[in-house]
Amino acid sequence: MKNSEKTLDMIVNLCKNRGFIYPGSEIYGGLANSWDYGPLGVEFKNNVKKAWLKKFVQESPYNVGLDAAILMNPQTWVTTGHVASFSDPLLDCRACKSRHRADKLIADCEQGKNVDVDAMTFDEMDAFIASHEEVVCPVCGKHDFTPIRKFNLMFKTAIGVTEDSSSTCYLRPETAQGIFVNFANIQRTTRRKLPFGVCQVGKAFRNEITPGNFTFRTREFEQMECEFFCKPNTDLEWFAYWKDFCKNWLLSLGIKEENLRLRDHEAAELAFYSRATTDIEYAFPFTDWGELWGIADRTNYDLSRHQEASGKSLEYFDPETNEHYIPYVIEPSLGCDRVALAFLCEAYDEEHLVDAKGKEDVRTVLHLHPFLAPFKCAVLPLSKKLGDKAMEIRNELAKDFMVDYDDAGSIGKRYRRQDEIGTPLCITVDFQTVGDDKVEADNCVTVRDRDTMEQVRLPISELKDYIAKKVAF
Amino acid sequence: MKNSEKTLDMIVNLCKNRGFIYPGSEIYGGLANSWDYGPLGVEFKNNVKKAWLKKFVQESPYNVGLDAAILMNPQTWVTTGHVASFSDPLLDCRACKSRHRADKLIADCEQGKNVDVDAMTFDEMDAFIASHEEVVCPVCGKHDFTPIRKFNLMFKTAIGVTEDSSSTCYLRPETAQGIFVNFANIQRTTRRKLPFGVCQVGKAFRNEITPGNFTFRTREFEQMECEFFCKPNTDLEWFAYWKDFCKNWLLSLGIKEENLRLRDHEAAELAFYSRATTDIEYAFPFTDWGELWGIADRTNYDLSRHQEASGKSLEYFDPETNEHYIPYVIEPSLGCDRVALAFLCEAYDEEHLVDAKGKEDVRTVLHLHPFLAPFKCAVLPLSKKLGDKAMEIRNELAKDFMVDYDDAGSIGKRYRRQDEIGTPLCITVDFQTVGDDKVEADNCVTVRDRDTMEQVRLPISELKDYIAKKVAF
Repeated sequence: MKNSEKTLDMIVNLCKNRGFIYPGSEIYGGLANSWDYGPLGVEFKNNVKKAWLKKFVQESPYNVGLDAAILMNPQTWVTTGHVASFSDPLLDCRACKSRHRADKLIADCEQGKNVDVDAMTFDEMDAFIASHEEVVCPVCGKHDFTPIRKFNLMFKTAIGVTEDSSSTCYLRPETAQGIFVNFANIQRTTRRKLPFGVCQVGKAFRNEITPGNFTFRTREFEQMECEFFCKPNTDLEWFAYWKDFCKNWLLSLGIKEENLRLRDHEAAELAFYSRATTDIEYAFPFTDWGELWGIADRTNYDLSRHQEASGKSLEYFDPETNEHYIPYVIEPSLGCDRVALAFLCEAYDEEHLVDAKGKEDVRTVLHLHPFLAPFKCAVLPLSKKLGDKAMEIRNELAKDFMVDYDDAGSIGKRYRRQDEIGTPLCITVDFQTVGDDKVEADNCVTVRDRDTMEQVRLPISELKDYIAKKVAF
Repeated sequence: MKNSEKTLDMIVNLCKNRGFIYPGSEIYGGLANSWDYGPLGVEFKNNVKKAWLKKFVQESPYNVGLDAAILMNPQTWVTTGHVASFSDPLLDCRACKSRHRADKLIADCEQGKNVDVDAMTFDEMDAFIASHEEVVCPVCGKHDFTPIRKFNLMFKTAIGVTEDSSSTCYLRPETAQGIFVNFANIQRTTRRKLPFGVCQVGKAFRNEITPGNFTFRTREFEQMECEFFCKPNTDLEWFAYWKDFCKNWLLSLGIKEENLRLRDHEAAELAFYSRATTDIEYAFPFTDWGELWGIADRTNYDLSRHQEASGKSLEYFDPETNEHYIPYVIEPSLGCDRVALAFLCEAYDEEHLVDAKGKEDVRTVLHLHPFLAPFKCAVLPLSKKLGDKAMEIRNELAKDFMVDYDDAGSIGKRYRRQDEIGTPLCITVDFQTVGDDKVEADNCVTVRDRDTMEQVRLPISELKDYIAKKVAF
């Protein structure tokens, strides 16, 4: 199935019905596009994180990890400019009182297609809307708006026992700054020389006006960010290195080249401090192309700002040249929920099968990379009488892998249930496995492959190695 | 070294200097007892989570996982009573304007030692303070306080684009409720029969008045909670089961029996809905006994409350008896940061060594369970000339393990650096490994054990199996 034939509904339904992703707080009517990862979803998402950490930290000769707190000293967000200008342009419809993003209204109207709304100031947006009657309220159709006001996207809270403004604090809108403020501590304690990177997985929060498209855009989300510190003027080389590295990571986990696009930002689109930025985009079923991974050359901008604002030196002493300087930074920044959704979209398939008797059937299957699959295998006793042996095998395999166990329904139905959740291997325990009056025990099981549906007979003693090879990444 | 000989300072210093744990946002002066896990800390803490998930989910025939959002529908916290009464009794000193917890002031005074402050109402506390002049402000020594007012411990924020009260929302003060509100979805999609449990690792937030003792009590913390659902009247059996299970988990990861205490709550201390509660306490160096793990029989209280408040059935249909009922719940609830701190305290040691020449020395070593250690091994080339071979070995091992690499300083110093961060094995690459003019290559390396300091010579080809056995859990 091509991505263009898939719909988001197919993915959402499978996720809800099989325990990948549920609406958050659903019994209370949910909470504006928040989502909870269910029993299969948590395994799957954890595997996405593991796959990232394995290649970005464990195997990398350059990178180390970090897990900084979500609540940071609020001065951090003053320095970065988030307090002053991390905001959306909002306006209200005077007629029906509904609230909207001015940039969205402009982009969605006919004349708006000719302007670069991302480059407009709030005043320019006000002027555009005032002079274009075709910009109308999507709720009531009127053209009668309040002026734009800034709406900061950071979630605000108060810390400590007093409620005055000195206790204001924010839920971090990105994990990156936790890395920058720890740069000196990390460099000192790891004694790393440049180049080296710091990688972090963690929650971030943005009070988006229009979250949506399932887990593509949510107010609470998880990031996997790397800040790679290098010598000045080696940054463009490392930018190219990480761009390739990130793309290859996606390809090696089963994303097809045809569903990826690398979009280089043009000079006008670049942040003023950035020397290069590329978005890796994915052909999500609900949009033309959706941003997956932003890889940016941020020069020495972030560390310089923090050094200036904090008064603490964030310079690196280069023992090769005896110089002090602020490192340059390449930032590959990936949304964990978003790339997980891409893997689900990529893996989803409905196969039309015709059996030997000409009977047609549809097989729903998740062709997930085995490393990402929630369960590595499922143990299926052919009869409930074989439960003891099957459970013994399950328990032994569970020391090394996430294993499902299913003894309900026909074996064909059980295969299909496992196909639908992406389990790479089904292990069937039958009467020959344990032997009975008629047949001698062969201590073997039948192992069926999710993708080819082919079966092999294997000694139980060889199962672990067989599975380990299958799920390696 | 006994725990009573250790101090929190020893642990804190090691953590800061070696990259386990840094003060949060330190360059900006920190943020009231918040902490960031550095390159070693994140590996270590992730291993603690892995150890918990392995035994509580992967190997368990009963339990499944979940990862619910931090931001939940606020009605959740109305139902649980957190909005109304999850609060501390605060008062101000009229003389110096400092703010305090009334219960702490009472507990800390001489007469307070004879009363059960946890059982007092806020009015009773007001009365006690008014009638006891010995209750004085710890800052200025005066006895002149405002009346107590309730201070809710939940962090409040606003979600969405309007700022009226309907958008108020809280950072979850515990992960448990994410499990309860998902009970029906999980049971339906996993088709689990009772008994079964749901396990979750995730951040929770409490605006504590007096956080402290390093990572023992912080405002932002991570929990590892399990809600185990069982048939009514089987709850006390399962309570005993999980109490043992939790204790054994700690013992199997190296906590010594002598540093653990199980404290059963007496009838008066039990919450009204609870049939039994036990705290597993640990002999932290900074206190007599500190709570580590709370195991509570919560009966059907939580699900009943949510069913009533949400109007959604949270009953279970028992196919064996054809009955509908609300399951009973056993809750083993563990603080991830807190148990990680306990592992560090337990592992910390300063060994007094005397070498063959009678020279005395102190070896600082973390005797962490190898599964918990940040690095499983360190590759140490005896000379920088051996860097290529050593890096080749490092890269091969890094496919399976977190591996450190160190080529700086004498081999003795490098051993000590690894001892201090708990690396179970040091792998030394020498000239015999690769061979030279004088000696034929033996393709072997010297492997030194952290705890015994003994060394063995092993073929490179056997390293992976040797390490895997050493770090198994």
